[in-house]
Amino acid sequence: MNQVLHDRPTPFLLVDADVLEVNLTAMAAYARDRGLLLRPHAKTHKCPQIAAAQMAAGAGGLTVATVAEAETFVDAGVEDVFLAYPLWVDAKKGARLRALSERATLTLGIDSPEGARAVAAHLPGARVLVEVDSGHHRSGVDPDAAGDVADAAVHTGLDVRGVFTFPGHSYAPGMQADVAAQEACALATAAASLSKLGIEPAVVSGGSTPSVASVDAGVLTEIRPGVYVFGDAQQWELGTISPDRIALTCLATVVSHARGNVVLDSGSKAIGADRPGWTSGNGRLLDHPAARVSQLSEHHAVVSWNSDAPLPELGTRLRVVPNHVCNAVNLADELVIVRGGRLVDVWPVAARGANT
Amino acid sequence: MNQVLHDRPTPFLLVDADVLEVNLTAMAAYARDRGLLLRPHAKTHKCPQIAAAQMAAGAGGLTVATVAEAETFVDAGVEDVFLAYPLWVDAKKGARLRALSERATLTLGIDSPEGARAVAAHLPGARVLVEVDSGHHRSGVDPDAAGDVADAAVHTGLDVRGVFTFPGHSYAPGMQADVAAQEACALATAAASLSKLGIEPAVVSGGSTPSVASVDAGVLTEIRPGVYVFGDAQQWELGTISPDRIALTCLATVVSHARGNVVLDSGSKAIGADRPGWTSGNGRLLDHPAARVSQLSEHHAVVSWNSDAPLPELGTRLRVVPNHVCNAVNLADELVIVRGGRLVDVWPVAARGANT
Repeated sequence: MNQVLHDRPTPFLLVDADVLEVNLTAMAAYARDRGLLLRPHAKTHKCPQIAAAQMAAGAGGLTVATVAEAETFVDAGVEDVFLAYPLWVDAKKGARLRALSERATLTLGIDSPEGARAVAAHLPGARVLVEVDSGHHRSGVDPDAAGDVADAAVHTGLDVRGVFTFPGHSYAPGMQADVAAQEACALATAAASLSKLGIEPAVVSGGSTPSVASVDAGVLTEIRPGVYVFGDAQQWELGTISPDRIALTCLATVVSHARGNVVLDSGSKAIGADRPGWTSGNGRLLDHPAARVSQLSEHHAVVSWNSDAPLPELGTRLRVVPNHVCNAVNLADELVIVRGGRLVDVWPVAARGANT
Repeated sequence: MNQVLHDRPTPFLLVDADVLEVNLTAMAAYARDRGLLLRPHAKTHKCPQIAAAQMAAGAGGLTVATVAEAETFVDAGVEDVFLAYPLWVDAKKGARLRALSERATLTLGIDSPEGARAVAAHLPGARVLVEVDSGHHRSGVDPDAAGDVADAAVHTGLDVRGVFTFPGHSYAPGMQADVAAQEACALATAAASLSKLGIEPAVVSGGSTPSVASVDAGVLTEIRPGVYVFGDAQQWELGTISPDRIALTCLATVVSHARGNVVLDSGSKAIGADRPGWTSGNGRLLDHPAARVSQLSEHHAVVSWNSDAPLPELGTRLRVVPNHVCNAVNLADELVIVRGGRLVDVWPVAARGANT
């Protein structure tokens, strides 16, 4: 680690540019080889520089979750954005979306006739995709009911382009292939339910980072992975991203050896508090695979060292892998970009906090 | 809710100024009645306006966790700040602390001889308190060993003022009185271990929001609660703060009725992902006590409605109580201040992201 990195106050987020590029290139090639459009979810990085690199590597557009995220990336020059969310469009959001639609091709998610009518009232003729629940049980309609929502949307004058789902239940051990099969089945059923009404779905969109390796390219036309750019401890533990492909870590300092543990200054305000029941801790150390963040407070990560090797001295800097990288990035203002251990750039997390 | 609030895009954090004032006044009176110095932990609100109100209500200084938080509040005029954290002080942090010490009275936490030497190297003669582990098992030394750390600190020329602990294991059902007793026992043992070496502890500091009602004012001289200003779903469920004393909520919009649930736009990027095993969900609704946030993604809070009453319509705005208010506040740039349902001010979360 060079002096600039050693002097910068911890905790901060470090991105290995070489690993990032490998990840971007590999996913772009994966999609291209299967005839799928890659539309990465920008919620993971929230960073115009990374969006630009994704587009340059062959992405066909971006996915976002909020109007504020869409504004950030359209401002940065992205011309095709899908808001994969059942937005409730009121007068204010409607005005912002109309302004955006003059500068970029927008597609919105809907999962109800009421939602469709609200979109149509403020954004006449908007492109929409109907959201389908493929088993994650969050938002989206049952696949059989997709036609009903599409029909209501068509009757309000919306341009129904197809269907989408988020197979989020792929974030669980051993579930990836099964969930990809459920995703394909749900999307095929939904697409058929539109076809029956004479609405030909041009877009059949799915794909999460854990499930994308098993995606059914016979059904889907588009994938929307997000986490693949950086990886995180969840993906490491699921076996969907190997540790050598983890591009983002939180650089942290050892501040205490209380009770024979390593206590780091990367708490939940730096790496996020996500801890699904199947994970082995609140995060991991990239260079010490046996170690686990076993307890997390706002500014303390208590690490079980799990090794006969001596504890790193107080003041040592270690690379922490957050459990859920999307929430870790949303806590930071900047990403510190390194190549070969040297700081080469600092990129803004331009859409941090862009929740509205 | 008035039109300004109705028009503001959700999700955002709402603070009821009347409830906030009740909370500030009550804790100040509680401390005063027991002869305890109140030194609130500012990590909860990160807001100069609230710090000023705490000081005006009778606080004797502030507690913070990081140098950056200390800088924020000294900039805002606070003159007495305790960094309740085993800081690792290097040259850069040392320079920042020296600059701060010219403008305010600083006290630092230490929990090791190495940490003490690092403080002394950069901030000669600094005031310190020795951190003791009273059962939370995070940082801090065993109470019996406090004297050893104090002795090492004195030998480096530091001004050892006493001992402190964070009884964080009080964040569990039914544990509050037991933990307050453990806190008092640990602090008394630690204070005695200093006295034996001829170091008379002037400060014996503890107190968390859950345990403070059982605090032993015969042992402690100072309490450092943080969450009491706002309350949250954890405190509601522990029974340590009643729902009518919850001052902060996240205003959120119903965006979907998927599967008969209420889906809100207040995801983990708005309310935080904290979910200890003993909580009943990822958050609650202030005006619907039976409802639970049963599933949380970055921009979706899936609410089990748990009532025969009809679901609120799409577009309805509801007040969500985060599980852990400190992490929710750290996700926001602003707090929207209301009285009687009318927006009266917007305060900055000036120390948001101040992790270093």
